[in-house]
Amino acid sequence: MTPKIDLWFSCGSTYTYLTMMRLDAVEAAEGVHFNLRPFQLRVLFKEMGRAPFLQEPQKSAYMWRDIERRAAAQGLSPTLPAPYPAPEVALANEVAYLGLRQGWGRPYLQASYRTWFEQGAMPGEPENLGPSLAAVGQDEATVLAELAKGEISNAMERDIDEARDLGLFGSPFSVVGRELFWGDDRLEEAARWAHAKSPR
Amino acid sequence: MTPKIDLWFSCGSTYTYLTMMRLDAVEAAEGVHFNLRPFQLRVLFKEMGRAPFLQEPQKSAYMWRDIERRAAAQGLSPTLPAPYPAPEVALANEVAYLGLRQGWGRPYLQASYRTWFEQGAMPGEPENLGPSLAAVGQDEATVLAELAKGEISNAMERDIDEARDLGLFGSPFSVVGRELFWGDDRLEEAARWAHAKSPR
Repeated sequence: MTPKIDLWFSCGSTYTYLTMMRLDAVEAAEGVHFNLRPFQLRVLFKEMGRAPFLQEPQKSAYMWRDIERRAAAQGLSPTLPAPYPAPEVALANEVAYLGLRQGWGRPYLQASYRTWFEQGAMPGEPENLGPSLAAVGQDEATVLAELAKGEISNAMERDIDEARDLGLFGSPFSVVGRELFWGDDRLEEAARWAHAKSPR
Repeated sequence: MTPKIDLWFSCGSTYTYLTMMRLDAVEAAEGVHFNLRPFQLRVLFKEMGRAPFLQEPQKSAYMWRDIERRAAAQGLSPTLPAPYPAPEVALANEVAYLGLRQGWGRPYLQASYRTWFEQGAMPGEPENLGPSLAAVGQDEATVLAELAKGEISNAMERDIDEARDLGLFGSPFSVVGRELFWGDDRLEEAARWAHAKSPR
């Protein structure tokens, strides 16, 4: 059986760019399946009294350079630093959630991250939403009308309780049972863990 | 020529435990030399307006579990969580600095981290300092008398300027030229970088 890993993430997370771009390859190489779980990380940040984005210039400079190096190792050439933080991340997460339910979530996320990191349009902004939805054959007005019903928003509120209970505080988190692996650079470690714990 | 990597660290850093315990093995496996650079990280934390230690319970819980998993993978069995934060980290860093000058720094650091993580005595505390120095054949009174001269303290103040200029904000940092690699889990990446940039 292919072990399953819950991948909790927010569409506003910078390091999650690296993850979305290599997710299919990691699954193939490690023989695992990532179950995508977008969540409203900023709600947790607010509860923790944390700023919704990096404020230390040293850490921020390091992050962009680190992403640049790791992207290059993946054969990617993003335009960095990308605009940040993304004001419409809550909407972006809802679109991803809906897309995952309807079967177009993963390619939408990959298109959205490319649009953000290669063309500079932030997730959830009209300049990102329209083209990223079009890339997966979805109509923006239809998607927004669906979200306006409020069901996705309610489902995501319940997920926040689950994320809080797990102890999540960033993105991406790979979760196997209650075992947490934080960061794009821990996908493989999570995969090894999932294999070790998987029933044979 | 064996590439050289500056390893900047503070003796109060928890993840640096993993690094000190595997430093010799990484050098052998990767064909690099780590030049140990203890520095007074808390001075920089203060300048950044950051608390000298983790305050979010979620992040703290994650850190200890992550260290436990990674220590187990190295064949180590620390008693976790270790006491934290260490109040006498400035003194511990000075002792390390002196020891590195005098040639006993690395085994002292390894003994001190073992004493902290296996026996629960924090770096710089008498219950750590005495046994860790004795383990490398050094006399505590002689070491403290040497530090009282102030030369090490002055040298370390100059190093803080270098660390600030590099943009360091944590421990450990592997530094190759001006290229920074943050964390115990990036030693190998730094080694690969050092080889790629090393003159042939």
